[in-house]
Amino acid sequence: MANGPSLIALFTDFGVGSHYLGQVKARLLGEGVTLPIIDLCSDAPVFDPRSSAYLLASFLEYLPEYSIVLAVVDPGVGSARRAILAQMDGHWVLAPDNGLLSIALKRSECVSLQTILLDLPHRSRTFDGRDYFAPAAARLCQCLPLPGEIMSPEHMVGYDWPDRSLAIIYIDHYGNAVSGLFGEMLSPNQKIVLNGIRINYAETFSSVNKGTAFWYVNANNLIEIAVNSGSAAEKYALTIGSPLEIER
Amino acid sequence: MANGPSLIALFTDFGVGSHYLGQVKARLLGEGVTLPIIDLCSDAPVFDPRSSAYLLASFLEYLPEYSIVLAVVDPGVGSARRAILAQMDGHWVLAPDNGLLSIALKRSECVSLQTILLDLPHRSRTFDGRDYFAPAAARLCQCLPLPGEIMSPEHMVGYDWPDRSLAIIYIDHYGNAVSGLFGEMLSPNQKIVLNGIRINYAETFSSVNKGTAFWYVNANNLIEIAVNSGSAAEKYALTIGSPLEIER
Amino acid sequence: MANGPSLIALFTDFGVGSHYLGQVKARLLGEGVTLPIIDLCSDAPVFDPRSSAYLLASFLEYLPEYSIVLAVVDPGVGSARRAILAQMDGHWVLAPDNGLLSIALKRSECVSLQTILLDLPHRSRTFDGRDYFAPAAARLCQCLPLPGEIMSPEHMVGYDWPDRSLAIIYIDHYGNAVSGLFGEMLSPNQKIVLNGIRINYAETFSSVNKGTAFWYVNANNLIEIAVNSGSAAEKYALTIGSPLEIER
Repeated sequence: MANGPSLIALFTDFGVGSHYLGQVKARLLGEGVTLPIIDLCSDAPVFDPRSSAYLLASFLEYLPEYSIVLAVVDPGVGSARRAILAQMDGHWVLAPDNGLLSIALKRSECVSLQTILLDLPHRSRTFDGRDYFAPAAARLCQCLPLPGEIMSPEHMVGYDWPDRSLAIIYIDHYGNAVSGLFGEMLSPNQKIVLNGIRINYAETFSSVNKGTAFWYVNANNLIEIAVNSGSAAEKYALTIGSPLEIER
Repeated sequence: MANGPSLIALFTDFGVGSHYLGQVKARLLGEGVTLPIIDLCSDAPVFDPRSSAYLLASFLEYLPEYSIVLAVVDPGVGSARRAILAQMDGHWVLAPDNGLLSIALKRSECVSLQTILLDLPHRSRTFDGRDYFAPAAARLCQCLPLPGEIMSPEHMVGYDWPDRSLAIIYIDHYGNAVSGLFGEMLSPNQKIVLNGIRINYAETFSSVNKGTAFWYVNANNLIEIAVNSGSAAEKYALTIGSPLEIER
Repeated sequence: MANGPSLIALFTDFGVGSHYLGQVKARLLGEGVTLPIIDLCSDAPVFDPRSSAYLLASFLEYLPEYSIVLAVVDPGVGSARRAILAQMDGHWVLAPDNGLLSIALKRSECVSLQTILLDLPHRSRTFDGRDYFAPAAARLCQCLPLPGEIMSPEHMVGYDWPDRSLAIIYIDHYGNAVSGLFGEMLSPNQKIVLNGIRINYAETFSSVNKGTAFWYVNANNLIEIAVNSGSAAEKYALTIGSPLEIER
């Protein structure tokens, strides 16, 4: 490859600032990684690769070229589920084969997809982030290929998932509620309906009065419901999985 | 300048460990930053530049010389509010012009103050931390000047704010409640009164019995109400904005 | 020493992503540290060196050789309690002398133990993590010895603490409840009893049905109670300190 990787980004449901993140970093450093390591997102929907898949897809476009993304939302850890590596949109993404990569793959130019078959000693049964994906990422940092087999996207879990989700897939600490709809899927004259309540479009927070709800295209190109200086999640009792409708 | 910057510190209300922090770091790295980047404070009072201003001021003194501080508590993002850069106390601080810098400026020797006028492509309307302040900070790291206009402090939002706040401006995860009063503003024989309850001074936690409340000058020179091995916030139902009085 | 240190790991009860962590890092960088600094664990049991001691011990084995661990769970900060440095299992660990190191010491080959006696200007009374342990760690990074006195382990607080705790010592954000029992202390045919309810062993999450509780040896060799795709803490109302029994 022309350029080596630029950074390692962790996308996980490990919990913000959790020791799981610390241990993955310690392992990466112990494997000789010298690239910067960042917590890209640590509160992906817990045990929920499906909601997480839309969120992960939304981040990739905003990473520096040649990022390595270690993506772990992995309720099936310890089972026979495969580990995969995708090269897409100029990034390398490592993840369990549980659908987590499926939406990103749909939305990107995927150059290659393969299984990861590393034979590692002292591997725990419950912490592949530290014991499997981290050493795999460390190999990539050294520009070494990962052993495994070429895979066809249609054999990947989640290949048949829809390219959008009419549901809330993430809630941030301000109470903004992110949907599984990408920016190009709605036009400003459409409304989002939550439990019978219509939400109008606005371009940004300061376009509406304090306390007013609106939908907008967030900075990662996902459609998000927000309240100026308030919490949309609280106002409408939204949680991950809450459904929404579109009104033309 | 004689010395280049030493680190980039993020002071934000983005939420601890949030993906907003991750994305700002990814952008900084993508812009070629090689300085260490630290989350100095990620849970500044949400949507509240005024409370945050006292907190930010308290941190600057304890940073290594020539730190770059990216300070973003910015409910007005997307509006016409300006972005500013202050060189003060040996640091460079970038922030929205919403008062966030005002208390730090009062308490420091400010060498220069300017607006930031960067013309950036692909700028979102809602995430200036990533899309505006990060590339601006990256320019500073390269010792490049930022385009903009010299500003007089009295034209900055918050110039007329008082140098102290008789209120709780921050609560940490132990339940310690930080006020907007700096150490030199009270003497040990004075009492803080919360809802009619008098709190005495003590030098440190181990000076009082377990469960006893006291006020002291915290490690950042702010006056703080604490309980030895307990939570002052819980004991007195304190939240950000709770008022306090001083008794001589 | 043959090899210099590889990283600095922070083990604290400072709160995930808290400004206390940010300030410790700023200080380390200001002291000239160039090693990577990671938040190994930031939500150790608050004010509770005893529960934290089992947790800390469980992490050391999984760190790269020659790690420097700054361990601060320190309700007695500001009192006359000593600060100590232990060289054990190939790592250097700095901590208050309040028992925090005691379990790690029991479980490791300790090469040396000493008090830390640094004479530092401008030291706060309440933030030794930043003002005392950070500059001490920075000296270690420069391969400088720390002033202090050789100590015999039996003079360390916690020397007489049991090597196991029949209690919950940590709960993670999934709701997994970690005990103070190490993997080798139970065999798979034994059961853990919580309030009269028997919990069976399983090797990993996917070995049981969704919603089913089990105990297993976690990735840090501690015995943990978990629920497949659920929260054990919620299911059994567990908190730090909750007792458990063993049934043969």
